[in-house]
Amino acid sequence: MNDQSNKWIGKRTVRPDGADKVTGRAAYAADATMPGMIWAKVLRSPHPHATIKSIDTSKAEALPGVKAVATAADFVDFPVDTPVPLGIQDMRWMSRNMLAKEKVLFHGHPIAAVAAINEEIAAEACALIEVEYDVLPFAIEIDDAIAKDAPILHDFMKFDGKPSNIAGTLEHTLGDVDAGFAEADVVIERSFTTKPVHQGYIETHACVVSVAPDNRTTIWSSSQGQFMVRAMTAYLTGIPQSNIKAIPAEIGGGFGGKTIVYLEPVATILSKKSGRPVKMVMTREEVMRATGPTSGSKSTVKIGAKKDGTIVAGQGTFYLQAGCLPGSPIRGAAGCAFAPYDIKNVHSFGYDVVSNRSKVAAYRAPGAPIGAFAVESVLDELAVELGMDPLKLRLKNAAKEGTKAAHGPTYPRIGYAETVEAALKSEHYNTPLTGKFQGRGVASGYWFNAGGESSAQVNITEDGNVVVTTGHPDIGGSRASIANITAELLGINYDQVSVQIGDTASIGYSNLTGGSRVLFASAMVVTESTEQVIEQLKGRAAKIWGIDPSQVVWEGGEARPMGEHSANFPSMSLEELAAKANATGGPIGAGSQSNTVGAEGGFATHVCDVEVDVDLGIVRVLRYTCFQDVGRAIHPSYVEGQLQGGVAQGIGWALNEEYIYNKKGQVDNPGFLDYRMPVCSDLPMLDCGIIEIPNPKHPQGVRGVGEVPLVPGPAAVRNAVHDALGIWIDDLPLSPPNVLAAIDANSSLQAAE
Amino acid sequence: MNDQSNKWIGKRTVRPDGADKVTGRAAYAADATMPGMIWAKVLRSPHPHATIKSIDTSKAEALPGVKAVATAADFVDFPVDTPVPLGIQDMRWMSRNMLAKEKVLFHGHPIAAVAAINEEIAAEACALIEVEYDVLPFAIEIDDAIAKDAPILHDFMKFDGKPSNIAGTLEHTLGDVDAGFAEADVVIERSFTTKPVHQGYIETHACVVSVAPDNRTTIWSSSQGQFMVRAMTAYLTGIPQSNIKAIPAEIGGGFGGKTIVYLEPVATILSKKSGRPVKMVMTREEVMRATGPTSGSKSTVKIGAKKDGTIVAGQGTFYLQAGCLPGSPIRGAAGCAFAPYDIKNVHSFGYDVVSNRSKVAAYRAPGAPIGAFAVESVLDELAVELGMDPLKLRLKNAAKEGTKAAHGPTYPRIGYAETVEAALKSEHYNTPLTGKFQGRGVASGYWFNAGGESSAQVNITEDGNVVVTTGHPDIGGSRASIANITAELLGINYDQVSVQIGDTASIGYSNLTGGSRVLFASAMVVTESTEQVIEQLKGRAAKIWGIDPSQVVWEGGEARPMGEHSANFPSMSLEELAAKANATGGPIGAGSQSNTVGAEGGFATHVCDVEVDVDLGIVRVLRYTCFQDVGRAIHPSYVEGQLQGGVAQGIGWALNEEYIYNKKGQVDNPGFLDYRMPVCSDLPMLDCGIIEIPNPKHPQGVRGVGEVPLVPGPAAVRNAVHDALGIWIDDLPLSPPNVLAAIDANSSLQAAE
Repeated sequence: MNDQSNKWIGKRTVRPDGADKVTGRAAYAADATMPGMIWAKVLRSPHPHATIKSIDTSKAEALPGVKAVATAADFVDFPVDTPVPLGIQDMRWMSRNMLAKEKVLFHGHPIAAVAAINEEIAAEACALIEVEYDVLPFAIEIDDAIAKDAPILHDFMKFDGKPSNIAGTLEHTLGDVDAGFAEADVVIERSFTTKPVHQGYIETHACVVSVAPDNRTTIWSSSQGQFMVRAMTAYLTGIPQSNIKAIPAEIGGGFGGKTIVYLEPVATILSKKSGRPVKMVMTREEVMRATGPTSGSKSTVKIGAKKDGTIVAGQGTFYLQAGCLPGSPIRGAAGCAFAPYDIKNVHSFGYDVVSNRSKVAAYRAPGAPIGAFAVESVLDELAVELGMDPLKLRLKNAAKEGTKAAHGPTYPRIGYAETVEAALKSEHYNTPLTGKFQGRGVASGYWFNAGGESSAQVNITEDGNVVVTTGHPDIGGSRASIANITAELLGINYDQVSVQIGDTASIGYSNLTGGSRVLFASAMVVTESTEQVIEQLKGRAAKIWGIDPSQVVWEGGEARPMGEHSANFPSMSLEELAAKANATGGPIGAGSQSNTVGAEGGFATHVCDVEVDVDLGIVRVLRYTCFQDVGRAIHPSYVEGQLQGGVAQGIGWALNEEYIYNKKGQVDNPGFLDYRMPVCSDLPMLDCGIIEIPNPKHPQGVRGVGEVPLVPGPAAVRNAVHDALGIWIDDLPLSPPNVLAAIDANSSLQAAE
Repeated sequence: MNDQSNKWIGKRTVRPDGADKVTGRAAYAADATMPGMIWAKVLRSPHPHATIKSIDTSKAEALPGVKAVATAADFVDFPVDTPVPLGIQDMRWMSRNMLAKEKVLFHGHPIAAVAAINEEIAAEACALIEVEYDVLPFAIEIDDAIAKDAPILHDFMKFDGKPSNIAGTLEHTLGDVDAGFAEADVVIERSFTTKPVHQGYIETHACVVSVAPDNRTTIWSSSQGQFMVRAMTAYLTGIPQSNIKAIPAEIGGGFGGKTIVYLEPVATILSKKSGRPVKMVMTREEVMRATGPTSGSKSTVKIGAKKDGTIVAGQGTFYLQAGCLPGSPIRGAAGCAFAPYDIKNVHSFGYDVVSNRSKVAAYRAPGAPIGAFAVESVLDELAVELGMDPLKLRLKNAAKEGTKAAHGPTYPRIGYAETVEAALKSEHYNTPLTGKFQGRGVASGYWFNAGGESSAQVNITEDGNVVVTTGHPDIGGSRASIANITAELLGINYDQVSVQIGDTASIGYSNLTGGSRVLFASAMVVTESTEQVIEQLKGRAAKIWGIDPSQVVWEGGEARPMGEHSANFPSMSLEELAAKANATGGPIGAGSQSNTVGAEGGFATHVCDVEVDVDLGIVRVLRYTCFQDVGRAIHPSYVEGQLQGGVAQGIGWALNEEYIYNKKGQVDNPGFLDYRMPVCSDLPMLDCGIIEIPNPKHPQGVRGVGEVPLVPGPAAVRNAVHDALGIWIDDLPLSPPNVLAAIDANSSLQAAE
């Protein structure tokens, strides 16, 4: 697919941040240090649900070594019953998630923070804070939270006119679903549950914040968006954004979980009070207890089809845990579930349910794997019922250019069908499985992808090299990809381009690294800036030659005179023009700021082979291939990295990851020893089938690639387990105890064994 | 002069960096620290002049704790006899000034540097480096260096076809100076000497440099230009500029002396070799011995006038010390000397003389005080001879719009005559001196001022505030002035504007903070950027209202619909438009990069009252007023700060500052105890007479103000001493021993006493 004329786009260049990362030089947030710096620790709720009657911090303040104490009273007040939506966040919830105000809503909920000369004294002081509680009954699971007599988390929250833990709903309707089902020859309906799973980034949340006496504030932190850090800190502390410089540290993984903040506004309050730089670093236990996993869910999906496999109706109901404060990704579940298919009649309904858990945070294609797990599972059962190949069933109903999707868009040229076709034709899918209790599953998935605000600056150095600055943290290799594009556009060597991530004071507003938006959006603004630079370079050459700029062409890294002038002047390189920049008008460089549009959705189809140890209940993935339309692979290695990473997380979600609560409403497995993420030895090499159907709305054809690869995973694994065992397991994870229980409940399998 | 309609321009706003600086929070280069950082020290020459036969670093390298050793062999090779001019520097000299190569040329010349785990071990290792020298005879003073049998510093350097220490000359000619003198009724000719004086910044040179294995380099240092640091480091180390991020620390004074580097390329070599961040901090003694003072000089000036005071001819010959490598500010001396006057016949000639001293560096209006000292001294003698008031003599010959100056320009509207008139009318000049041995002197001065490359970015934050980024270190309050201008243009509050200094990766190329260029140039690019932002804001409002952008006016911080639409929509504030930025097209912000022109020269006239203690030889300044055309005082407090600072330095140069060399060719007073700079108790309040004749070539009328105030000082003091004692002293400084010697030589005064 890659244009042979491309020199850098599509090449596996060395990533600019690579050497620093493999040699340990890269500076993450916890590496930051400042003279006079003090440390802060957080006091957390021992109860999953209680009213806070009073907080007495006097003993903590009196402890020698303590420099400041912060509670919710130090934040700007956002009344709990008044919506304050800013960007994708509601400040009421942001505020109360960082420091509890009227109530504590989960075990581990932050109540107060203490800054002291070291962590030990800060922790000791936290223990001296006296909090009076009215302990309340609690609800952890969805069914408990929506039961008639459920303890209500937020009194003002109403559903059907009554106090409720249902915080909101979302509905997508297309055609007439009842009429659709009436046409169906076969209807399958099933219910599913999934457990909350954590993003599992290696780096825990950390920051250093320094506030000067005049409120000028510097924040070093690891996040998915320095501008989000600036905004949240500004809104909660009342310091104007223009007085806050948020510096993005390198980030040790985010996966959506660092699109919000937990520490920075708290550290800002403590630094302002103490006059000292304040450092906060979460422990893994704090991360697991009190930062968002994604939602647990329960859902029911019903699909009807004609005998020939034409799907005539699809219906889905999705209940998603929001955690203790409203805002679960029901849009991702209800919106993406049916998105790969051209179905005339769809009804999709989502419920946002609060309970006494930590507030969920975005996690790679938030909600979409939940919707896909249900729909792709039912599709597999439908294929069995119809006696059709499950991929051919999908291909027959594949959405294509012109398909109207239930969640809104009419698709432009997309590559979904191509992913199914590639899977069908693949060596993987055509190699039979021969072992006992082996099985193969397939599933597809969709993610919206996002555009939004990005800014870029492209400057030519005096020695004829290039510095590109953008405003989003580089999580998945975006620096290398941006350098590929810039070198390609300018016709220069990759090594001549340095890509930097700017702080909030030095680059224009740039939205989060999230929504699979970064390369899509930053490539657009970098392209626009680079094209302006090329115009400047042509103008400089024209000035030197005394000809009209329209008579200059830029090609192969050089300005060349055209037409009648072509023989008069030798071409000029970037280096030569840079050396003459002063004499021809000054520095050469250009910026671009834009709200980018045209991201368009991404699609993938996965093929998964498993073998089940029926004695131990262990499901082992034997082979896995991810076929995905990536638009255009600007840097194939980092596209593959995204695909492989997403697949690994999908397998983890499918097989082992889950939050386990005890009867006291506490997480019993808040660490990587007990919360079982897949490690290298759990996985085979994960294969990538990269399909390139260029996004027609992007200068390089880029589509977001980061989130789609997680979406099909849980269903593909579950369908493979069915193929291996003949059992439909509808509740994740497919962990040894759950798989053993399913085997035990299935007498035919026990006989077969 | 200040337009009453201005809300911020001309106001004494609180400087943005003020709180940090008075509370000690501001981070200077020596405050930087990094994990794993090591320290470097420099081995310096014990001889003022010697050939280096060999350098053996093996014993130093073997010392435990030593991590790297650097010598000139580690730099990119710039052959000594081949000019490599880059910007205002010649890389041959830059390179050899940082680490000696073929020869050591002054006592204290760096030869090698050692990085070790602490400063003590680094110093110990320096002592283990074995250097074999061929010691050579040396020349310190100009007369020794230009004597027939002088030791020649650079064999390839020729003058009049013979090896010479005269590195270059410069000549300005206007009219026919012989014919001019022939017309004169009175001709005065005198010869003068001035001593080298140091810039005397409080902060010594310091840096921390970190080089990654892939050569990506981060430099924290204090300088007058992060882009100069980047360029010099790149050229000397061979690392591309795009791989170097030079971060400007706050700067504790520069005065021209930090327009070049001494440490950064050396630390870069050491960091590259050791794999560790390397810190270097000079001691005061190192600063005094081996960083540039300005030139010592000898000069002869001859001026002829008619009886009515019309000056008909001026001739000047100026020898300036370059230090050990070529490049003294002869242009400032020969070019500025006669610049305040409309003289038809001028001949001005400068000699650049090398000798075995540390290489001079720029110092506030480099060279100009030397030229002005001679011309303004002769003018005073001429006034006495003609029986004219010295100010009236100057006024009669004052340059004005249309005057052709010998150094090139034909002046546009300038304010020189206004400075003389203001002095003549001033309460100060009209208050008689009554005490014994009291005297009053006057003098005028000129500085070219500079434009050149600057870049700016103006961004609107989501909450409707403003971040302005420019690329020059703020030495004299430029952040506050830029905030005044931005707030004025946008019609918002000063507090809403935050001004940042960008590093080399985040802002476009910006030339040095020097040449009195910063506010002139940055105001131009900030104005251009802000005007673009205002156009964007009008466009956003137009989009919201559904009208044409031409129907929107921006006024008082608001967009207002015009004409037929004026009643249809309420005006929208910056805050409201910022909140809607996403929906109306994305981030709001704009940048500008330009090679600014139109700086135009600046003029001042000083009035100085002194009292001489004829027993001790102490000259005490009683009162001092600086009348200066500042174009427009964007921030009067920082204009006054520049004027007062310049005057203080001029008084120091006049009265006490000097380098004292011993017979071994070593500086005998390399510290602030023995090198006598004026302190607070030495000076009266220094008064400022700000005159505002707006620069017609600048949007706010700005003229550079930083350098002119140093120019007249030495002559004004010397003329006042003559008025007090009746003695013309022609050699600076007017220190107690020199003044006593002059008194001793003057029998009439001894009688009067």
